[in-house]
Amino acid sequence: MGCRSPRAADPLASWNEGPAKQAVVRFVSRVTQAGGPDYVAPAERIATFDNDGTLWSEKPVYFQLLFAIDRVKALAPKHPEWQEQQPFKACLEGDMKTVLSGGEQALLELVMATHAGITTEQFERVVTEWLATAKHPRLKRRYVELVYQPMLELLDYLRQNGFKTYIVSGGGIEFMRPFTERVYGIPPEQVIGSSIKVKHEVRNGTPVLVRLPEIDFIDDKAGKPVGIHKFIGRRPVFAAGNSDGDFQMLEWTTTGEGPRFGLIVHHTDSRREWAYDKESPVGKLDRALDEAPGRGWLVVDMKRDWKTIYPAAKRR
Amino acid sequence: MGCRSPRAADPLASWNEGPAKQAVVRFVSRVTQAGGPDYVAPAERIATFDNDGTLWSEKPVYFQLLFAIDRVKALAPKHPEWQEQQPFKACLEGDMKTVLSGGEQALLELVMATHAGITTEQFERVVTEWLATAKHPRLKRRYVELVYQPMLELLDYLRQNGFKTYIVSGGGIEFMRPFTERVYGIPPEQVIGSSIKVKHEVRNGTPVLVRLPEIDFIDDKAGKPVGIHKFIGRRPVFAAGNSDGDFQMLEWTTTGEGPRFGLIVHHTDSRREWAYDKESPVGKLDRALDEAPGRGWLVVDMKRDWKTIYPAAKRR
Repeated sequence: MGCRSPRAADPLASWNEGPAKQAVVRFVSRVTQAGGPDYVAPAERIATFDNDGTLWSEKPVYFQLLFAIDRVKALAPKHPEWQEQQPFKACLEGDMKTVLSGGEQALLELVMATHAGITTEQFERVVTEWLATAKHPRLKRRYVELVYQPMLELLDYLRQNGFKTYIVSGGGIEFMRPFTERVYGIPPEQVIGSSIKVKHEVRNGTPVLVRLPEIDFIDDKAGKPVGIHKFIGRRPVFAAGNSDGDFQMLEWTTTGEGPRFGLIVHHTDSRREWAYDKESPVGKLDRALDEAPGRGWLVVDMKRDWKTIYPAAKRR
Repeated sequence: MGCRSPRAADPLASWNEGPAKQAVVRFVSRVTQAGGPDYVAPAERIATFDNDGTLWSEKPVYFQLLFAIDRVKALAPKHPEWQEQQPFKACLEGDMKTVLSGGEQALLELVMATHAGITTEQFERVVTEWLATAKHPRLKRRYVELVYQPMLELLDYLRQNGFKTYIVSGGGIEFMRPFTERVYGIPPEQVIGSSIKVKHEVRNGTPVLVRLPEIDFIDDKAGKPVGIHKFIGRRPVFAAGNSDGDFQMLEWTTTGEGPRFGLIVHHTDSRREWAYDKESPVGKLDRALDEAPGRGWLVVDMKRDWKTIYPAAKRR
């Protein structure tokens, strides 16, 4: 008040001019225009984002799986039986094809063996250390540097317009929380994800929470609206995803009353990132892509709509 | 900036001057003093509050049980078998003693019969209507008027000092969310409670979430630190409760590093509210009261420390 603010820089500077950027800006203008027909009160401005493939890359496989494989290697000395037992043997041999051929059962076994049996604080430290040191096999950058610059700008832009931004991911909630605040500006209490059960124990007078090898909640597909309801208790007005795992979240969001926005990141850029959709085992985008036009969901064409993919590397 | 703010009114006006009020004010001053040794960054200022007996009354029994009994009466025409089947028969006859004699099993049956089988939106409407119309059997006020004025002030005071206030209650999360924002200033996404499972369904092209007669999570006793970890992912620095059901939340909060505050509302006022502790079946306060001095938890003596109990009645 009292002093004029300078003309703001473009908050979506990494988005090319065009229909995608225009649609986002037009929606935000509509719902924030006080007194307008599509005004949404700030308390109701809930925006939910998938993580893998929507906020950061997910190739060659979900980064959390690469974390699990590194954990298998680190824990292997205590588990001589893994030398002969799948999917652990394949992890130790770097044989990703065999790891993936085991399907969901193999992934579940990997998660239980590598994500449980320690306290929540110990797990947080393990994840934090891995994120600080491990590098992507092909791109040779740390994983937290493989986030999408245009999506970081979109998160900021929505928050500047009174939105509360959430992650709603099939990934592990405790795998994401150690970095989401620093990297995305999303605090741990706004992260929703899959989880294993934890148990409260008092050890020598000190309470701890111990991670158990038992699924608590799978925040994927039809689980996403369930997770949103459980954690937020309001229906979002904005949702962004990139795969059929996000279909129900996008549907739940955009079938509510009043103005709604659904956004799909379409991976079309084999040169700067990856190009995949209907046939991809990781991040399969089929039904959601087919139904997007009829449902009014914006399909962002990564190659066409994004000026840059990743943030400029930080010199440290 | 630029204009001097007037001297603020006492934010805790309904608290009598004395050690309890002083302890709260001193703690908040310490953790908000920038550069001070006990400074806590705003993002870490998480405060968790039990609901029943801490933010509103819980006598003669938890208000949610009175809601369930009213639901049994409303649904009885569709359930002729309830005329002869406990605990439903006792509900219909207004025989609270028999209802309670059935213990947890009877309460569970009541919840499943009255809280499930409808969509989340339908349940929200039922709760909202009940809260708008039903009155407390003895005090003849609506339940949302039986909240504690000093605790409303404490919630506001903490928020004014950068705290994020949460409810962490054994009560049903979906029973609380319809009123917490309006009554306590706590939005639905900051309410943690017990829950039943919900199932995503698409009915005639429209997604709904259907409430199932199956326990999802019990947010009581050792469940409170688990719920806090699950929903917030940070350890609170301030926690308030009134019964042994809050013991683990208070312990979890106050055994963290740095400045911490634990508060117990002790029901000592049989004239203005109720007086109960060690022997009370509802809101039993025994171990937490015994251990409070040794653990440095503040015991608020309702009769001594609070000028008023309930907000002044609104004329409408």
